[in-house]
Amino acid sequence: MRLCYMDGNFLPFDRAALPLSDHIILRGIGVFDLVRTYGRRPMMMTYHLERLLKSASALGIENKLGVEAMKSIVREGIGRMDGDGEVLVNFYITGGDNFVDGCRFPDPRYFVSFQDLVLPDKELYVKGVRLFPLDRARLMPSAKSIDYSAALAKNSVDPGALEVLYCPGGGITEAGHSSFFMIKDGKVVTAPDDVVLAGTTRSLLLQILTENEIDLELRVPSLEELSEAQEAFITGSVKEIMPVVQVGDITVGDGDPGEVTGRIRKLYRENIPRWLE
Amino acid sequence: MRLCYMDGNFLPFDRAALPLSDHIILRGIGVFDLVRTYGRRPMMMTYHLERLLKSASALGIENKLGVEAMKSIVREGIGRMDGDGEVLVNFYITGGDNFVDGCRFPDPRYFVSFQDLVLPDKELYVKGVRLFPLDRARLMPSAKSIDYSAALAKNSVDPGALEVLYCPGGGITEAGHSSFFMIKDGKVVTAPDDVVLAGTTRSLLLQILTENEIDLELRVPSLEELSEAQEAFITGSVKEIMPVVQVGDITVGDGDPGEVTGRIRKLYRENIPRWLE
Repeated sequence: MRLCYMDGNFLPFDRAALPLSDHIILRGIGVFDLVRTYGRRPMMMTYHLERLLKSASALGIENKLGVEAMKSIVREGIGRMDGDGEVLVNFYITGGDNFVDGCRFPDPRYFVSFQDLVLPDKELYVKGVRLFPLDRARLMPSAKSIDYSAALAKNSVDPGALEVLYCPGGGITEAGHSSFFMIKDGKVVTAPDDVVLAGTTRSLLLQILTENEIDLELRVPSLEELSEAQEAFITGSVKEIMPVVQVGDITVGDGDPGEVTGRIRKLYRENIPRWLE
Repeated sequence: MRLCYMDGNFLPFDRAALPLSDHIILRGIGVFDLVRTYGRRPMMMTYHLERLLKSASALGIENKLGVEAMKSIVREGIGRMDGDGEVLVNFYITGGDNFVDGCRFPDPRYFVSFQDLVLPDKELYVKGVRLFPLDRARLMPSAKSIDYSAALAKNSVDPGALEVLYCPGGGITEAGHSSFFMIKDGKVVTAPDDVVLAGTTRSLLLQILTENEIDLELRVPSLEELSEAQEAFITGSVKEIMPVVQVGDITVGDGDPGEVTGRIRKLYRENIPRWLE
């Protein structure tokens, strides 16, 4: 079942359409954010929707909808989904038809997709995953724009890799759909907020690590360092904490998911109830 | 007047729509290319449409339409436009609904926009333009994807700049909507094909420069060099050859459009008839 909210109405997703004149189609001017549920309760909804508004602002899209109104739409859509399974919500803001003053999109459109949540294969957590390093950075790291063309094109080069890993100039920033963490000499290392998307799972995790007195370094780790690291993992709302055992030719640690990653994953899962809304 | 071709039909552009399920909307998977007319004859149509197919391929979109069939659509659409003014054609290929094997979009959609050509203000050629330097590169320089979010967001930083200029690590690659050229010590310098979009106007110009024995260097010029250069210009299908007099804080030459740029622009215009189809 897939449901859509648009212009005040809920309708089957496959019956919803956008005019060609919208700049999300003509020039990729669109942003989105996703919310998943646990026990049908949305996780970190406020954080996700506030990030959505920041993304819109970074692209010059002038949002007209408040976070509380957005929350009502998310809650109502979840309620309309059949059964009692978990739901994945994707909330979009488009550039709309009008582009003025060379920088403003004053008439955005909104649509929201509601679908059954599909979790990653459990095997990925047991065996760990491979990432494909790319010597590039996202053009606007602060915005979650719809542009995932580079993130999705990686598989033609390395079909076995789960995601691309952006490594501009050899420094690891973030993965195509996830935040990236390296564990080296007992410290957890991840790129600072100003060069990556402020991942929600990442943000929770940083808080949990601090509360549990696990050493943290906010800096861009290099690919060279990674070959001497003990463990690595990626994070995301749906995948939570997933071990990384290979990046291109580099085997991380002994090539198996590590103990510290396992412990951090357990800590994260224990803390989830704190952020359900 | 704006016309659209879609699914075998021509219809008013504002009546055409795409289903939300298309990945051009959901994840920015879409490519396009444009063709303009001179005397109602399309310029470099074959080159543009072949580049369109390369762009599609780079994003994993499996094109089903041959270049000759595309040409027929372009010609018919131009014929259907009212009056005898020039026409701007935008030919799109979308990712479609299906994404398989983690890298393929096997069911693309096609749509084509036909509209009256609007030329840049003549004043821009007389006074020259300012560009806004950005320390980033496009993620997939070889593909003309729909993602122009960074190119369009520049004006909030420098509203007077015409376009963004991508300068990753201080090396000048290309502008947001144009190819970039610097003239220094009698030589024309521009970035090689492997780091920029293979611009059509750029490609013609390289041929014309060679035929006219004007010295050419295919390498990435630096922002530092630009401050010692005599002239600079950008090229594009609609703008043709447009002088650049400022890049951020750097004034190019004496701050006025240069003589060599003027001569190159004249050469380009004289050669246009060779590439009408």
